[in-house]
Amino acid sequence: MQWFTEIQNKGMALSIGVKKKIFEGKSDFQKVSVFNTLEFGRMLTLDDKIMLTERDEFVYHEMIVHPVSQMLKKIEKVLVIGGGDGGTVRELLRYKSIKRIVLVEIDKMVIDISKRYFKTLGKYLDDKRVEVKIMDGAEFVKNTNEYFNLVIVDSTDPVGPGEVLFSNEFIKNISRITKNLVSQTESPFLSKDFINRYHKDIKKYFKNIYFYIAHIPTYPSGLWSFTIGTNLKLKPRGNLKLNYYTPEVFKASIVIPPVYKD
Amino acid sequence: MQWFTEIQNKGMALSIGVKKKIFEGKSDFQKVSVFNTLEFGRMLTLDDKIMLTERDEFVYHEMIVHPVSQMLKKIEKVLVIGGGDGGTVRELLRYKSIKRIVLVEIDKMVIDISKRYFKTLGKYLDDKRVEVKIMDGAEFVKNTNEYFNLVIVDSTDPVGPGEVLFSNEFIKNISRITKNLVSQTESPFLSKDFINRYHKDIKKYFKNIYFYIAHIPTYPSGLWSFTIGTNLKLKPRGNLKLNYYTPEVFKASIVIPPVYKD
Repeated sequence: MQWFTEIQNKGMALSIGVKKKIFEGKSDFQKVSVFNTLEFGRMLTLDDKIMLTERDEFVYHEMIVHPVSQMLKKIEKVLVIGGGDGGTVRELLRYKSIKRIVLVEIDKMVIDISKRYFKTLGKYLDDKRVEVKIMDGAEFVKNTNEYFNLVIVDSTDPVGPGEVLFSNEFIKNISRITKNLVSQTESPFLSKDFINRYHKDIKKYFKNIYFYIAHIPTYPSGLWSFTIGTNLKLKPRGNLKLNYYTPEVFKASIVIPPVYKD
Repeated sequence: MQWFTEIQNKGMALSIGVKKKIFEGKSDFQKVSVFNTLEFGRMLTLDDKIMLTERDEFVYHEMIVHPVSQMLKKIEKVLVIGGGDGGTVRELLRYKSIKRIVLVEIDKMVIDISKRYFKTLGKYLDDKRVEVKIMDGAEFVKNTNEYFNLVIVDSTDPVGPGEVLFSNEFIKNISRITKNLVSQTESPFLSKDFINRYHKDIKKYFKNIYFYIAHIPTYPSGLWSFTIGTNLKLKPRGNLKLNYYTPEVFKASIVIPPVYKD
């Protein structure tokens, strides 16, 4: 066994036991690697950062999709920025009302690799309700006039290719095409400044902001956050049988310990 | 900078950036080490497992003490098994009603090291309300006839010296001397079988069981659990100004995602 090690922060690193590296490639945007791990199933890394493992990806994907989707009365058209692995689309496709999902992923290699190596993720991108566009999400949002019930920003960290997806201008452009936005917003333990800045921006364009947390063992610090911007009232509900999300879990997940509050 | 690495599980390891090892000793029970870290302040390890860091120890200590303490109408006498670092005692001493804390720690070196190197922890053991006994907690519980309002099991993992503190016989003996027990009960992500077994045992001796979770970045998987056995009804409350515990956080922390339920 070997260890794959991700430096999560200056003084913190997580290592995952690896049986074999089964793919490594260099796309126009990043290094893409796939591993068979000892305890986490297959693992996808981008620029040596863990994007997902088969064992715990359900937490991230359930928790980015269902809290806001369950609040919406009717969900027909969704835009996903990033999310080339297909996990977010998989969770969206549980909603029979959904007619169209546009997924805008900048890096075609992520999609190809997910279809090839991640059987429980990539195939959902082939669903006939899904249109995949290989392009810059910020550019797409700037130029489209299509209206969506929901926009999901399922991106990498706000550095490098992901940075623009957390800018004030990007949020402003999104607010033109939807009333409901959810974004992954990093670890509250490690990225308090980023979260505060993002919240300041998103509040300008959306009436209600819901900030919530979930436990993802293979993400930095094990604690991850998401932010919803919406004009909807908070109404945790749902009758899907899931592994992490329940209405009660969502209700609990918006209770933020004082240490992580502004 | 160097890395201190803890193998948390077969295929998972956490590394903490270390400026300097400032103490290493071998007691009768374990290897005891203290480090100055890059981002987590001072760190105590026992047999190369992270016991606490100055940066995130408050989560563990607040969450082992306050949920059950706040439920108790009057708290005068508390028994702490383990907890030689002093953090649990620090949190207990916030209650003016407390007259006597008996702390039973098997390893004197942990106490000495905490008093010497951890200024925000060890000194609380010198409070005149605290009686420290250096002995096996299981032996103490078997032989004492003193009654306590609360027993806190603040121990290492249920392997090696800590194992006996999770046995059926130990819980049975505790139920003779208190109506309220709280114990740390490991990571729900990594130790589901242990938790199920422990809950089966504690249910025999205590009427109500409350299982709850908290996020501790430097503990395996980042998610930790605690279990209360009591005859009290659940009543989250509190007016202490803390960094992690609030009545709302406690109420949220008993909402367990389906994946971690039996």
